[in-house]
Amino acid sequence: MATLKDIEVAAAINILTAFAFFVAFAILRLQPVNDRVYFPKWYLKGLRSSPLNSGALVGKFVNLDFRSYVRFLNWMPAALKMPEPELIDHAGLDSAVYLRIYLVGLKIFVPITFLAFAIMVPVNWTNGTLEHSNLTYSDIDKLSISNIPIGSDRFWTHLVMAYAFSFWACYVLKKEYAIVALMRLHFLASEQRRPDQFTVLVKNVPPDSDESVDELVEHFFLVNHPEHYLTHQVVYNANRLSNLVEEKKKLQNWLDYYQLKYSRNQSKRPSSRTGFLGLCGDRVDSIDFYTSKIENFSEEIATEWDKIINNPKSIMPAAFVSFKTRWAAAVCAQTQQSRNPTTWLTEWAPEPRDVYWANLAIPYVSLSIRRLIVAVAFFFLTFFFMIPIAFVQSLANIEGIEKALPFLKPIIEIKFIKSFIQGFLPGIALKIFLIFLPTILMLMSKFEGFISISALERRSATRYYIFQFINVFLGSIITGTAFQQLDNFIHQSANEIPRTIGVSIPMKATFFITYIMVDGWAGIAGEILRLKPLIIYHLKNFLLVKTEKDREEAMDPGTLGFNTGEPQIQLYFLLGLVYAVVTPVLLPFIIVFFGLAYVVYRHQIINVYNQEYESGAAFWPDVHGRIIVALIVSQLLLMGLLSTKQAAQSTPLLIALPVLTIWFHRFCKGRYEPAFVRYPLQEAMMKDTLERAREPNLNLKGFLQNAYMHPVFKGGDDSDSDAASGDGDQEPELVPTKRNSRRNTPLPSKHSGSVSSLPEAVQEHAQLL
Amino acid sequence: MATLKDIEVAAAINILTAFAFFVAFAILRLQPVNDRVYFPKWYLKGLRSSPLNSGALVGKFVNLDFRSYVRFLNWMPAALKMPEPELIDHAGLDSAVYLRIYLVGLKIFVPITFLAFAIMVPVNWTNGTLEHSNLTYSDIDKLSISNIPIGSDRFWTHLVMAYAFSFWACYVLKKEYAIVALMRLHFLASEQRRPDQFTVLVKNVPPDSDESVDELVEHFFLVNHPEHYLTHQVVYNANRLSNLVEEKKKLQNWLDYYQLKYSRNQSKRPSSRTGFLGLCGDRVDSIDFYTSKIENFSEEIATEWDKIINNPKSIMPAAFVSFKTRWAAAVCAQTQQSRNPTTWLTEWAPEPRDVYWANLAIPYVSLSIRRLIVAVAFFFLTFFFMIPIAFVQSLANIEGIEKALPFLKPIIEIKFIKSFIQGFLPGIALKIFLIFLPTILMLMSKFEGFISISALERRSATRYYIFQFINVFLGSIITGTAFQQLDNFIHQSANEIPRTIGVSIPMKATFFITYIMVDGWAGIAGEILRLKPLIIYHLKNFLLVKTEKDREEAMDPGTLGFNTGEPQIQLYFLLGLVYAVVTPVLLPFIIVFFGLAYVVYRHQIINVYNQEYESGAAFWPDVHGRIIVALIVSQLLLMGLLSTKQAAQSTPLLIALPVLTIWFHRFCKGRYEPAFVRYPLQEAMMKDTLERAREPNLNLKGFLQNAYMHPVFKGGDDSDSDAASGDGDQEPELVPTKRNSRRNTPLPSKHSGSVSSLPEAVQEHAQLL
Repeated sequence: MATLKDIEVAAAINILTAFAFFVAFAILRLQPVNDRVYFPKWYLKGLRSSPLNSGALVGKFVNLDFRSYVRFLNWMPAALKMPEPELIDHAGLDSAVYLRIYLVGLKIFVPITFLAFAIMVPVNWTNGTLEHSNLTYSDIDKLSISNIPIGSDRFWTHLVMAYAFSFWACYVLKKEYAIVALMRLHFLASEQRRPDQFTVLVKNVPPDSDESVDELVEHFFLVNHPEHYLTHQVVYNANRLSNLVEEKKKLQNWLDYYQLKYSRNQSKRPSSRTGFLGLCGDRVDSIDFYTSKIENFSEEIATEWDKIINNPKSIMPAAFVSFKTRWAAAVCAQTQQSRNPTTWLTEWAPEPRDVYWANLAIPYVSLSIRRLIVAVAFFFLTFFFMIPIAFVQSLANIEGIEKALPFLKPIIEIKFIKSFIQGFLPGIALKIFLIFLPTILMLMSKFEGFISISALERRSATRYYIFQFINVFLGSIITGTAFQQLDNFIHQSANEIPRTIGVSIPMKATFFITYIMVDGWAGIAGEILRLKPLIIYHLKNFLLVKTEKDREEAMDPGTLGFNTGEPQIQLYFLLGLVYAVVTPVLLPFIIVFFGLAYVVYRHQIINVYNQEYESGAAFWPDVHGRIIVALIVSQLLLMGLLSTKQAAQSTPLLIALPVLTIWFHRFCKGRYEPAFVRYPLQEAMMKDTLERAREPNLNLKGFLQNAYMHPVFKGGDDSDSDAASGDGDQEPELVPTKRNSRRNTPLPSKHSGSVSSLPEAVQEHAQLL
Repeated sequence: MATLKDIEVAAAINILTAFAFFVAFAILRLQPVNDRVYFPKWYLKGLRSSPLNSGALVGKFVNLDFRSYVRFLNWMPAALKMPEPELIDHAGLDSAVYLRIYLVGLKIFVPITFLAFAIMVPVNWTNGTLEHSNLTYSDIDKLSISNIPIGSDRFWTHLVMAYAFSFWACYVLKKEYAIVALMRLHFLASEQRRPDQFTVLVKNVPPDSDESVDELVEHFFLVNHPEHYLTHQVVYNANRLSNLVEEKKKLQNWLDYYQLKYSRNQSKRPSSRTGFLGLCGDRVDSIDFYTSKIENFSEEIATEWDKIINNPKSIMPAAFVSFKTRWAAAVCAQTQQSRNPTTWLTEWAPEPRDVYWANLAIPYVSLSIRRLIVAVAFFFLTFFFMIPIAFVQSLANIEGIEKALPFLKPIIEIKFIKSFIQGFLPGIALKIFLIFLPTILMLMSKFEGFISISALERRSATRYYIFQFINVFLGSIITGTAFQQLDNFIHQSANEIPRTIGVSIPMKATFFITYIMVDGWAGIAGEILRLKPLIIYHLKNFLLVKTEKDREEAMDPGTLGFNTGEPQIQLYFLLGLVYAVVTPVLLPFIIVFFGLAYVVYRHQIINVYNQEYESGAAFWPDVHGRIIVALIVSQLLLMGLLSTKQAAQSTPLLIALPVLTIWFHRFCKGRYEPAFVRYPLQEAMMKDTLERAREPNLNLKGFLQNAYMHPVFKGGDDSDSDAASGDGDQEPELVPTKRNSRRNTPLPSKHSGSVSSLPEAVQEHAQLL
């Protein structure tokens, strides 16, 4: 067992590591050559231009102003300086609210820590249980609940504190929920006109033998929302096309690389092999090879493009329907359209950037089956993931490698390397699995059929949290694989389970303190260094970059990564709440984590990350819910722990705590969650009225016409390389083609649609009846 | 243990009892004097007039046509003859769909029974386990799973059958859900214009210092639904008034009674005591006493009436808002109105008859707290109800009675009576509790704040089912109080619980067979006899009835009683599904119950019951959900049972079954439930369009104006006695008074409201912004 001394040493090491990272960051960020790695957000916003363009040659790459090194931590106050409204404007509401999660951590844990140190540490310390026992114990344990003698009246302190901490946490949570809900509504109300305010996504358009999806959607909404329907856009199945474009872009990268290589060394034309990974196959001239390949792809893309536009089957049974007012869109999104509740499903359209196009056409039954499959798969992933890894580990031994790659044998047989591999190899399969876990979870969410990237990330985050809860939290407390735990729990009674876990909790405090320092402190400090993007940027810069635009593309600002970041924070909430009563000495470590992470992520959000979408803090109910789960877990475990301490009279009093907490959660859910899933009509009407007064002649139709176009058709923002390479001329064709097909229908043009087609709408009715 | 012979005897007794009930019913129903007891529905519909008015004196009371006695069971085919559409028209959709629950029972269990008897009975019978064991066993047990030797491969049959039965049950459930959903939509679409189609109930209108609720509601909806708002009615807090009216009605009854008594025996004016229950106090002249008391009450009612109308505080923060079209009402009911999701809550208005007026004004926080309180109270009621009963039992012993009522001592001391009381008394407290249980549950639901009677009944049914499941089903299988069970289960592991119950299940088969025969067969046959209403009707007829109208009121048609009836059926579903695989011999008893109940209730619905409201089969999702619960319970118990039979290889295969069943439930929920909670816009639009074409000049406002008035203000339907006794003149005053208060506001009149007040609406906006 670790003593206080050990913890101090570990803390010192980790503080030094974190400090080293910060120093390295401070030096690297001041070098102009790294400017695009550490300030990409400003480049993307067009507020910063390359420092390479000005000054002396050396000054372009290395910062020679030594004064700037002195103030090497001055990014910290700078990161904190930007006020929140400006931050929302700069980086979006998602990022600003994400930072609030850390603030919630501070708000919950700082008062709890003070209270715990003022009251519980003395109560625990002034006992002699451990001193008089024969057990080995550490100073940390003397500060924990383990030091209280069995059956002591002092447990009442812990009981009262559990209530106090829970009430404080709930109070902070409620206040924060109210603030975030208000921020969201304010953001939605005050922000500029966005297409998703007027647009509803319609899924599962039922098949019709007489009409195309295009006509069907128009008719349906003209009939059922006659005074409000404005226009719609059908969804093309462009998955193959976007794959092709993606492929072509990769080839283009290679071509660029070889051209640059050739231009630097004109003596020899670069060549490469055509086979697997360039390792085998015929040797050909690289530039010619890639040029011809790109031409092939361009042709294929053109054919696919034609196919999509001309084949009615490539229109998916989904559409983005836009309305004349926000009010009408809010109405359509919140109501059921058709008698059959599995067709004509409407929901708020996600932001155009946020749409996950591949999932727009999944029918209801399939969705339902996919959900079952993913649920079962996730269950097995969580509880049985060790089985395939153990299998791989048993295969990937030294003998196996020697057989597969005999030429490595002499190297492997060197004793030092052999023992290194033998020690290292078993871990590597697990490590690789853990690295790929977020990707696997993301694939699951994609398979499950969510239609926006934000929803995908939210669901992945939930799964990642469950995985971490079972395999990291429970797995560390009760050593053994998740499956063994599951087996144990099935064979234990309902009141035995919290007891089993509760008893082990005080013993694991030192482990988790170390975990927090390594994963939290050093990990967060490493995040700011951005080692991977730094290396990749310089590699790309060296190998691919020809023009300023290429350099722009070589930047990888990255995103917040909600699906991995949030579950990590939640683990700290869980640890903090569980140990608050049991071993309060863990709390300062949590506070340092939250404080450090807040500053670092604030800096990153201001200077680095570029959010791909804006969901308007739609994730907050999830965050709130998981903190509540942590609270309930902590209460149950405390109950289990106290019941073994023969403080029986306190257990019934503790039962009320989870009941009240669950009630509090349901109260908050009813009170605040609607702000995150629905859009109040009052709000919509207000914005509509204001807008009508300000811009009476607004051409909304023009604004919405092409807002929801598959990004591959736009060719704009990030795939401009296509637009430049021969496909650009195809693009304008798309709109006329769509229009032609519409002209063939007996419908009037859209502009007069809602008025002159009313008789048709009635006719339609007659058919329906 | 009961043998087949015992069961046969019990069956014979119960069949004879049921038969006796039927014969008694057949005789009683043919007597003209009972006509209003057995055919009240037809009287209420005005399709049958009193047979007392015509024919000879004796013929008025006794049926002398002996031929009609011969065909004494002919009500059965008659009950089955009415086709379903006519039944819906006659008794409403609720009743028609309620009958379908019995049909579902037949559809599920008839094929299952055939399959079970064809395959499982031979498989079970052809073993010798019980014969070779030393256990005492009955012939019933030889037909059950107990007869299979441990570890036998024959358990595969049970496994396959469990799958077959589950799939069949799910298939029937899905088909039925689809049919009922369609029936509901068809009913909503085809029925006549009803106020609730155009009306939305708005609750939690926020307080406003400048405007009254009346004005506030009008402004809010004029602003936020400008083109659709038609009119609204505020809700008066008339709880006290309706209590007074109720009280007065009771007094009126007594007055009638004494007047009738006096008119029959003019020699002596009736007198009564004023004190508690007429047992003590001064003796006064009854007629004078009640006349003066009624006068007092009339005055009090008039004052209260004035108070309600003139005091703005008696207007509750809720209103019924009517729209010009069904479409607009559907929109308003399904959307969120205000930024704060706990104010301006909208939902479909229940039918006027269905409104539970007392609960319309409960604020959100209070509702939330009430829900917690009721949940905790129900938990204690379910698990600890034996404690107060045991306490009462300990008090209510012979000595206690002798002390309290010493004059009874000589009677009680007779040995026979003493032993009778001693044997009877302990049970009586429990019996009284069980009789009052539905009322207690109903009170809980009322306290919880549901705003329609149908919702109250649905929630009470859910609670009653849970109570029965724990205290009847589990309580019979594992003898012991619910609290002891709870204690057991907490101390048992998750896989031990189904095992404990599962093992006891085959042993309890004979008990449940007897239970089905007593509670199901004889109980249902008793239902048709209507003994209690028969006696009460004749008592009233003798004591109170003066006019034909009084006789009309003396009828007590009763209702289906969803809150007690449905949980009873569900218990049979549970028993049937649990025993289908274990002891198939129980199934025919279930089938007889479902068949008999179907015929009896069909007869009662056609001839007797008078539904108080029409919810459009809104209860079906509950029914479906509970059958699914029964299915899952049966699967888990089978798993537990098989795991003790060392048929271990089959357990993993059984785990898939509940998973699939839960998935099926979620699928059905998504597919069909929206039909029961939302109203598709397409549907609404179709009806609107049709109506506009048919009746272009409809005065909808007139139709809706007073649709949602507290019944006490109407004085119509059932409280006409008030209207006749001096309050009638107050009634017309109500409307002008309301109008006056409106004229004082600067608003235009309602008829031009939506058009001419638009500028005001904009002004309103300006204030809000």
